[in-house]
Amino acid sequence: MAALYGGLEGGGTQSKVFLLSEDGQMLAEADGLGTNHWLIGALECVERINEMVNRAKQKAGVDPLVPLRSLGLSLSGGEQDEGVRILMEELKNRFPYLSESYLITTDAAGSIATATPDGGIVLIAGTGSNCRLINPDGSESGCGGWGHMMGDEGSAYWIAHQAMKIVFDSMDNLEAAPHDIGYVKQGMFSYFQVQDRLGILTHLYRDFDKSRFAGFCQKIAEGAQGGDPLCQYIFRKAGEILGKHIVAVLPEIDPVLFKRENGLPIVCVGSVWKSWELLKEGFLFALIQGRQIHALNSFSKFTLMKLKHSSALGGASLGARHVGHRLPMDYSVNAIAFYSYTFP
Amino acid sequence: MAALYGGLEGGGTQSKVFLLSEDGQMLAEADGLGTNHWLIGALECVERINEMVNRAKQKAGVDPLVPLRSLGLSLSGGEQDEGVRILMEELKNRFPYLSESYLITTDAAGSIATATPDGGIVLIAGTGSNCRLINPDGSESGCGGWGHMMGDEGSAYWIAHQAMKIVFDSMDNLEAAPHDIGYVKQGMFSYFQVQDRLGILTHLYRDFDKSRFAGFCQKIAEGAQGGDPLCQYIFRKAGEILGKHIVAVLPEIDPVLFKRENGLPIVCVGSVWKSWELLKEGFLFALIQGRQIHALNSFSKFTLMKLKHSSALGGASLGARHVGHRLPMDYSVNAIAFYSYTFP
Repeated sequence: MAALYGGLEGGGTQSKVFLLSEDGQMLAEADGLGTNHWLIGALECVERINEMVNRAKQKAGVDPLVPLRSLGLSLSGGEQDEGVRILMEELKNRFPYLSESYLITTDAAGSIATATPDGGIVLIAGTGSNCRLINPDGSESGCGGWGHMMGDEGSAYWIAHQAMKIVFDSMDNLEAAPHDIGYVKQGMFSYFQVQDRLGILTHLYRDFDKSRFAGFCQKIAEGAQGGDPLCQYIFRKAGEILGKHIVAVLPEIDPVLFKRENGLPIVCVGSVWKSWELLKEGFLFALIQGRQIHALNSFSKFTLMKLKHSSALGGASLGARHVGHRLPMDYSVNAIAFYSYTFP
Repeated sequence: MAALYGGLEGGGTQSKVFLLSEDGQMLAEADGLGTNHWLIGALECVERINEMVNRAKQKAGVDPLVPLRSLGLSLSGGEQDEGVRILMEELKNRFPYLSESYLITTDAAGSIATATPDGGIVLIAGTGSNCRLINPDGSESGCGGWGHMMGDEGSAYWIAHQAMKIVFDSMDNLEAAPHDIGYVKQGMFSYFQVQDRLGILTHLYRDFDKSRFAGFCQKIAEGAQGGDPLCQYIFRKAGEILGKHIVAVLPEIDPVLFKRENGLPIVCVGSVWKSWELLKEGFLFALIQGRQIHALNSFSKFTLMKLKHSSALGGASLGARHVGHRLPMDYSVNAIAFYSYTFP
């Protein structure tokens, strides 16, 4: 029986498992519930992982009692050392036939390994935001990722919040709005189905739902596409602060990442990137300015990419590499470039 | 039996009732649980009000079956029209012997009526923040009061959050801190008893407690008093944004309020005002600037005051006035001025 390599992408609400042959052929995949150990606890987490991998083994026609050669887990929450140690122990002790070897990485590391062979930046702008740099030696650093109470700048939550805050402050006469607030104000009342600002309080406190709140970002995107200057202003600001996240990690980047054919690879994850054209001006402004401040001439080009495959693939690749096997990967299929920029 | 006038201060966690004779003598007081109808519902709220007033009647040696002439309720949450209407109906229908007449106002209106005969500004900077203007005709407008998710600028929560955000952003290299973060960073880890920023997340999300979070403001005040430049900077910013709340309502102020002997009366409520010396520079800066922008020369002086009595007193005064009786009040005892400023 040939060696099997597994990869898992574990998010807060859903997960995915891939099983690959040693020549990189996809043999089976399986979907499952969320596997963020911080949310559900280590025991439930390893149960779910085991169940998904067994399901994938069966799909691939493999005996569940034959362990994988390696399992690479790309986990949201994978940066918490103590949690990862416990998870690893539970996997080994409770499921001896699951896999011979394990590697647990962050979802950022898994995403990068899906898109590029040796590192890059993941810039997440979904409901929340986060920027992680993975250097060629596997070391990771970052900026953000602290959630809506302490950051999430440039995320859908942040865009929705900025828009509402501008309306609140303008109506309070606390800060003058940079543009007319009419569209955003009406959009806010209609999205939350309330009459006035007092009605919004329920959605901010008693019935707060981050995803629902962040959903108002969609209305801001529609407004910006329709030409509303305030909505366009907010997306420009979002682009700028997302760009600042890249600037924040510039000093940590291994210079070899600047020397790629397409320049620094930036993997863009999350629904806010659908509005790239709205973010572009602010994003470029922040990068051009930040590059000058750091006097970083070697940073001559960057390329934004979107993943076409789950980061379970990158997880499988990292897990295999951990046991000395390099799974063949077609990076040009795994991720596609949607924007490249060369500094003048 | 002479007419009795009642006043109630209703907060989120506790309440107070005063009973006064028609010449303004205090006959009895009673304390009780919170009476914010938004938090506990109208039925529980009126039960608590009735119970407290009856207890006060007994203390005053009055038959509980003899209704008060009026009851003025100074309630947090007293600005919500529909809630107030329901509350009023329930009081009348369920407790016919409680009082002949009711007046429900905001806690801001009750506070102002405790300190001054005909209006002024209440500027709250406690765990949260809020600024309310009560004009001599009783009309109310304001700035802020939207809670920590959409404002609370200048509050203890906000000061704690600003301090932590500066540390997070500086460590992320996202924004340069205006001063060394050493004191605040160590203070944050020790206040929340965590090793690193990941440890803070529990206090921001899973175990979030606004009061406990806001309590970190005390450490920033201590740091500022001890000379830490970053802590001093944050309090200056807090003073500035609190001042901006006053500036925000300037256009709404009835000019007669500027013509008082001590100028515009500003009643300061909440623990952040204990650090007035730290707020002062920023507060004056905002007011001097805002006065110029509004070209408001008639605004020549203001006086900051602290209440020495519960706003139940102001509630009683407003309730009595509502039925045509003016309760004698010694405003110089009810509130004391702690700072006056005349614009140059």
